[in-house]
Amino acid sequence: MKELTNISPSELREHIRTGGFTGNTSGFAPGFVQCNLVILPSKWAADFLRFCQANPKPCPLIACSATPGDPGLATLGDIDIRRDIPSYRIFRDGVLAEERSDIVELWNDDLMTFALGCSFSFEEALIGAGLDVRNITEGVNVPMYRTNIPCESAGPFSGNMVVSMRPFSPANAIRAIQICSRFPAVHGAPVHIGDPAAIGIADINTPDYGDAVSILDGEIPLYWACGVTPQVALENAAPPLAITHTPGCMLVTDKRNSELAVF
Amino acid sequence: MKELTNISPSELREHIRTGGFTGNTSGFAPGFVQCNLVILPSKWAADFLRFCQANPKPCPLIACSATPGDPGLATLGDIDIRRDIPSYRIFRDGVLAEERSDIVELWNDDLMTFALGCSFSFEEALIGAGLDVRNITEGVNVPMYRTNIPCESAGPFSGNMVVSMRPFSPANAIRAIQICSRFPAVHGAPVHIGDPAAIGIADINTPDYGDAVSILDGEIPLYWACGVTPQVALENAAPPLAITHTPGCMLVTDKRNSELAVF
Repeated sequence: MKELTNISPSELREHIRTGGFTGNTSGFAPGFVQCNLVILPSKWAADFLRFCQANPKPCPLIACSATPGDPGLATLGDIDIRRDIPSYRIFRDGVLAEERSDIVELWNDDLMTFALGCSFSFEEALIGAGLDVRNITEGVNVPMYRTNIPCESAGPFSGNMVVSMRPFSPANAIRAIQICSRFPAVHGAPVHIGDPAAIGIADINTPDYGDAVSILDGEIPLYWACGVTPQVALENAAPPLAITHTPGCMLVTDKRNSELAVF
Repeated sequence: MKELTNISPSELREHIRTGGFTGNTSGFAPGFVQCNLVILPSKWAADFLRFCQANPKPCPLIACSATPGDPGLATLGDIDIRRDIPSYRIFRDGVLAEERSDIVELWNDDLMTFALGCSFSFEEALIGAGLDVRNITEGVNVPMYRTNIPCESAGPFSGNMVVSMRPFSPANAIRAIQICSRFPAVHGAPVHIGDPAAIGIADINTPDYGDAVSILDGEIPLYWACGVTPQVALENAAPPLAITHTPGCMLVTDKRNSELAVF
């Protein structure tokens, strides 16, 4: 699949759409925004939008459907949301029921799509600045943790924030805060630095999601609000049907990461 | 002197110039840039300028004389540098010799003036953002430490960086890094966070300059490059004559702090 890493987002989506690509999108179509996906029945849309608005760091909304049943997201490219994700997760009553490579048979005129910013964008900016992003260097999924930081509730959507963690030298931690502050649409600056216990993490070497990474002598952990947070809120809200991407298998868009920089 | 806190910079300079104000300028003429001062014989000017250029975090040069002997700094206001500082320090061969309230009798046609950014500007921005700046809250001078971080040398000017320290909660530490990143002309973002020993500070409760401040449970120390650094470089360079401000007795300018924000 190496030859696909430098193709355009629309070419990559064509491969995904036609079933030729079903894996992790990390590193593909570099320079372009990849998004977390949430699809819900329209009845749940307003509360979920309010949840995103109230919790912009874990749930930075980049685009949503214009009308229920519309499978496009015009601001992000020529997208058919029913086929353009390599792997979908289907939740019924808040419980993961199955994974699918398309959702054509599940689609109906009442579904609303939400595309949320993803850490791939800021990791690219950190790597571009010469920083060592440990989960990338070690070739594993970023470690993620449930915290004791409560999200603002909105209707049935509630829960504590999930964070991802990346360790840096003190000087690079300061640089990482600066770099990520430019990108509020993809989780922005970290929400915590240092002591894991201060945000309810019992053991930094035992993440709740993803994989542990090495923390070198003298390094300080930085914690970012994470796109797994809305999945926790979905589990708590337990709508009859909810569809997300499979972790790592993102919506690849035509929007450039550089377009998201606020300064 | 309370009635002077809200007067204009030029009115305050008039009080200083005529000998009616000889104290600490912290808190006076809020909103306006105050500067560290260095005056040197012209022969030393090029090396000192190179030292500032190579070490912009401890030595952020805001203005310098247009020509030797010119006591004005037009970009900073209607300034007479011979009288507009409440208290001057006179160094001979790198050693503090005396303090004076004006330098009219010492002035000559060969002296060059350098005005460097000062932490008062970023402290004002931190306070404006609702953060607790501990040295302000506790009414003491900020604690400052000699570190093991070497400056880039330039001719005879050399030495390790001096840092100031302010402790914050982790979330406010991240916010402080963001806020100060907007102001590179007044030391900018911190140079270190966390472990004092990592930058050669033996005891955080025993500063080399200024006063110790309380560090509350769960707080993390942030360290900024400090305007005392050029004084250390002056001591090492040991020019026959050097004149600085007395710590806390700054050059009050007509430039607004907000003008220094780079975004």
